[in-house]
Amino acid sequence: MIRPEESTGTTSEAHDASRLPLPASTRIYVEGSIHPSVRVPMREITLSDTKSFTDRIEKNEAVRVYDCSGPWGDPAFTGTSRQGLPALRRDWILQRGDVETYDGRPVLPQDNGYLTEKHAEYASQSEKANKFIEFPGLTAERRQPLRATGKPVTQLHYARQGIITPEMEFIAIRENMRRAKIADMQDDIIRNHLDKQHAGSQQQPDSEYTPNIFRRFPQRIPAGITPEFVRSEVAAGRAIIPLNINHPECEPMIIGRNFLVKINANIGNSAVASSIEEEVEKMRWATKWGADTVMDLSTGKNIHATREWILRNSPVPIGTVPIYQALEKVNGKAEDLTWELYRDTLIEQAEQGVDYFTIHAGVLLRFVPMTASRMTGIVSRGGSIMAKWCLSHHKENFLYTHWDEICDICAAYDVSFSIGDGLRPGSVADANDKAQFGELEVQGELTTRAWAKGVQVMNEGPGHVPMHMIEENMAKQLEWCHEAPFYTLGPLTSDIAPGYDHITSGIGAAMIGWYGCAMLCYVTPKEHLGLPNKEDVKVGVITYKLAAHAADLAKGHPGAQYRDNALSKARFEFRWEDQFNLGLDPETARLHHDETLPQDGAKTAHFCSMCGPHFCSMKISEDVRQYAAEQAISEEEAVQKGMAEKSREFVEKGAEVYQQA
Amino acid sequence: MIRPEESTGTTSEAHDASRLPLPASTRIYVEGSIHPSVRVPMREITLSDTKSFTDRIEKNEAVRVYDCSGPWGDPAFTGTSRQGLPALRRDWILQRGDVETYDGRPVLPQDNGYLTEKHAEYASQSEKANKFIEFPGLTAERRQPLRATGKPVTQLHYARQGIITPEMEFIAIRENMRRAKIADMQDDIIRNHLDKQHAGSQQQPDSEYTPNIFRRFPQRIPAGITPEFVRSEVAAGRAIIPLNINHPECEPMIIGRNFLVKINANIGNSAVASSIEEEVEKMRWATKWGADTVMDLSTGKNIHATREWILRNSPVPIGTVPIYQALEKVNGKAEDLTWELYRDTLIEQAEQGVDYFTIHAGVLLRFVPMTASRMTGIVSRGGSIMAKWCLSHHKENFLYTHWDEICDICAAYDVSFSIGDGLRPGSVADANDKAQFGELEVQGELTTRAWAKGVQVMNEGPGHVPMHMIEENMAKQLEWCHEAPFYTLGPLTSDIAPGYDHITSGIGAAMIGWYGCAMLCYVTPKEHLGLPNKEDVKVGVITYKLAAHAADLAKGHPGAQYRDNALSKARFEFRWEDQFNLGLDPETARLHHDETLPQDGAKTAHFCSMCGPHFCSMKISEDVRQYAAEQAISEEEAVQKGMAEKSREFVEKGAEVYQQA
Repeated sequence: MIRPEESTGTTSEAHDASRLPLPASTRIYVEGSIHPSVRVPMREITLSDTKSFTDRIEKNEAVRVYDCSGPWGDPAFTGTSRQGLPALRRDWILQRGDVETYDGRPVLPQDNGYLTEKHAEYASQSEKANKFIEFPGLTAERRQPLRATGKPVTQLHYARQGIITPEMEFIAIRENMRRAKIADMQDDIIRNHLDKQHAGSQQQPDSEYTPNIFRRFPQRIPAGITPEFVRSEVAAGRAIIPLNINHPECEPMIIGRNFLVKINANIGNSAVASSIEEEVEKMRWATKWGADTVMDLSTGKNIHATREWILRNSPVPIGTVPIYQALEKVNGKAEDLTWELYRDTLIEQAEQGVDYFTIHAGVLLRFVPMTASRMTGIVSRGGSIMAKWCLSHHKENFLYTHWDEICDICAAYDVSFSIGDGLRPGSVADANDKAQFGELEVQGELTTRAWAKGVQVMNEGPGHVPMHMIEENMAKQLEWCHEAPFYTLGPLTSDIAPGYDHITSGIGAAMIGWYGCAMLCYVTPKEHLGLPNKEDVKVGVITYKLAAHAADLAKGHPGAQYRDNALSKARFEFRWEDQFNLGLDPETARLHHDETLPQDGAKTAHFCSMCGPHFCSMKISEDVRQYAAEQAISEEEAVQKGMAEKSREFVEKGAEVYQQA
Repeated sequence: MIRPEESTGTTSEAHDASRLPLPASTRIYVEGSIHPSVRVPMREITLSDTKSFTDRIEKNEAVRVYDCSGPWGDPAFTGTSRQGLPALRRDWILQRGDVETYDGRPVLPQDNGYLTEKHAEYASQSEKANKFIEFPGLTAERRQPLRATGKPVTQLHYARQGIITPEMEFIAIRENMRRAKIADMQDDIIRNHLDKQHAGSQQQPDSEYTPNIFRRFPQRIPAGITPEFVRSEVAAGRAIIPLNINHPECEPMIIGRNFLVKINANIGNSAVASSIEEEVEKMRWATKWGADTVMDLSTGKNIHATREWILRNSPVPIGTVPIYQALEKVNGKAEDLTWELYRDTLIEQAEQGVDYFTIHAGVLLRFVPMTASRMTGIVSRGGSIMAKWCLSHHKENFLYTHWDEICDICAAYDVSFSIGDGLRPGSVADANDKAQFGELEVQGELTTRAWAKGVQVMNEGPGHVPMHMIEENMAKQLEWCHEAPFYTLGPLTSDIAPGYDHITSGIGAAMIGWYGCAMLCYVTPKEHLGLPNKEDVKVGVITYKLAAHAADLAKGHPGAQYRDNALSKARFEFRWEDQFNLGLDPETARLHHDETLPQDGAKTAHFCSMCGPHFCSMKISEDVRQYAAEQAISEEEAVQKGMAEKSREFVEKGAEVYQQA
């Protein structure tokens, strides 16, 4: 665990913990067939053999898992964060022939929070100088930005034309990973055993235990994800592929409820603490542990430079809240914000390559007073900035009144919208109130208008919501926003556990993911209290990764249970190393184990620290199987003789065998 | 954080961290009216004043919270763990005139794991000598145990006779705490604001978002808990009060789905590590953070002595799994277990004062072979011991065949049953299978038979269950076990996060608590990996406390939201100290805050580290309120003039005010 205070302060690869490979892991690539230039990275976890009680050695196939770490997770990659990542998508973008390069907007001192030339000059002489912090990978040959020459250059636009882009094929392979692997498998027995999966809510729409939402808004997850399915979901607006044409380093991923549930990690320096290098390393660190997208919520100085560093090094989509930077440019005075200044900031960020913008265009003047009697007023930063602007000018939110122009900008760079929920509840008391749902309806209107302009859209959601009020959020969003993807913060299911809000919110996140939320914005243990350090980022990511996975299981996402099955099998067979390595955080699992039993022998022992050798239920259970195998026709024999039928018979009639004896 | 390895090894109060009071907290007692000897402990958290932007000073009433720590949480208590706690309930028990003292069963060397006299003698000379570890509070005057002279001495028996025991009044006051406090309040404004609570699933049975289970098995939580309501729920079998007559130190508490959701913490030494003192301190530590009951799952040596220390010092009910000790007595060979030996162990533990027994009487011979084809066989220790016994002897489970005799023993001491789920799933793959549900049906039969003998019953449940299959567990348990309380381990909603299973299971625990589970057995971060240390115990307890509370909110338990409201108000008003102190773990909240902003001034600052002064949404929100107050009739003015109506009008019509301007 590296904490910010341990920073060496150099500009080299001081914080490189994110590049250490995970144990027993190999980077592999799966190639595309429609687009041969597509190479999809995956992590393959090698497993040890099973030694059964009959001394039969059984091989365990390696398990492939989704990998967000990009080139940083490939030991063969030798680049550094000062050079940035290779431009994976550059050719795909150029080959479509619908973009041009141009001289981008010049970077101004104000973009980095220096309000006058003098100020910037002074700063450039100091330790935190502009030159010092500028991303070095661009200095030699300043890259010109790309923009559309005419029609939208969005994945939505292509999808509507029936075009399957390389990005879509990349995603199909990535989402389909488990199923491709199953098809490869030689050993039918292992395959059948490990491939067992419960029918999810999707497959059981009529069960009395299935929430109503699945009847009203059925999922459509197919048995195998094809490039055409990806295209059709994007075309329908039910999924988005956030990929700015100026972020060619990014690996394609998709956000939609008929795909794997995704998670976002927030990073960003602030006026109070943090440095650029730490933020870049936090981004890589978050993707190492599984962040599917990262939001850069930087405030204070050097916002532009920080973002440049992050974008040039990020293999995942980067989201921002442009109003934060705009506010810095007016020295924090919300009432001084103007459409022109905001517009300029959008272009600045679109040229840099930001993949999605959070825009609080649904905070309308008429909703603001509804928050005055709330327990916790307005807690969204963006929402409160816009509320203050609206009240100061007695005018409607300029983000709302300029929505069509904002859409045109985003269509020209393929920046996706994450329509903000500026009036989300900041306490369970304020959940599902008129202000919140009023804004959600406007989000629906903005969604339709953005679609008309060819821009991809998702909608942000709460916040703090008690468990029994979560489903209503999801149902209303699907209805009012026409099944555009939902992207929620938590929600936190209780307010009384500061320091543990990754957990209060992980509960709500898992539930809303099950109900159909497409991406879950993580919450760290520092929520409400302070800035997350690297360890907090990791705990937040792992918590949300497990919540998202729990949702995939409950939805019945095909192949989701395979990793659980592989890990459970390893656990039951006392393959300790495999159990650690198949987990979301092998390091922590191993540390926890070694705290009680540090000896190397304990990791091959057929018992564990909780019970000791005599009490171990798994040991006894194995004895039961062995006993059963000796006494009667066993599953093991059945397997060896290929008599799957007999095995089932044993399970059904086994009891009689013993009762007769 | 004190870890076991930091133990000084002395028998004095070396591990006394659990006795340090929580910040800003006062111990208070509320007296009974039916039984004047009833004094119910509560913790009262003192809050600072609100300084509003109009410079009005507003007092914030102290918040009372449920307190499980017993005398250890009372600074006026001067006893030590070598003396044990005072016998709070002794007079209540004796005054009922239905018990006798008698010479208890002598303590045998085997009870502590010494299989021969010689072995014990040898051990008594060693460092881990019997005399050394024996609980010293009993040496001078060995207390004789109590038992029934005739009829059952259970709270169920009394409840059926229409008797409201002191225990029942104690519980009514304890559960009713918030509501009693609200009635005391002078300030109507604060009261109305903080007392706001969402209607829970109970109050909205017809909502399309209410799970079916609430229609089929309605909750019956009244607006105020009366002693008569406690009695009626116990009489109906829907709730239990686990209180052995030989554990007079214990403070009464109730487990039932029409009361607050409770949590259990497991402790216990094992063959591999741990010492008696550490276990006693872990028990106190767990209750300090909110464990409602504690299970002593000790194995290995000194089981009897460890339990004696724990019972004599425990203010909460203690549960055990007697088969663990019985197995030690036969040197770990399940097939050598006999009814006689087990019966003797039950009496041994009943005489010591164990409040509830986990008994795996539902693991029937016919279910055992059903587990052979499972992913993870049998993972319950008790379940696998009984399975092995059944198979070895080709006989039905002796716990099942001797159930009536077991009931008679428990009725004579008021030991409650926690009917074990020995075939619970150990992986999501095995969830809700035939073996598991087969056993659950037998649990129902055993419940009815225990009730006929006057014994209180709850049922244990899973385990590992994906989210969408949790409701079915709760529904079947309520149906088949006739609404006896359910007591589940988690359930874990995914298998892929070893090291984070307090969270994978906290998700399932919160959900099943909402659906009606009465008590949640905690899972620590060490689950599947090692023995929990003190820090793990704390993390497990806090995680489950927040899950139980999230469930109380979702059920609509009256008064549950009060603490959330008080904390949210403190948060919104930048009363940092109050925010920490109202949380479940003030210490961790403060540490997280201070990591970013350690200065004392930061805890009175009207901004926080996440955003800095300019960006703080709460600051801006306050500005919005102030602005609104200056521009139009404000909520603040309305409150001052007592015009609650006007305030509501402002909220409704506020928008027009601004649009006209």
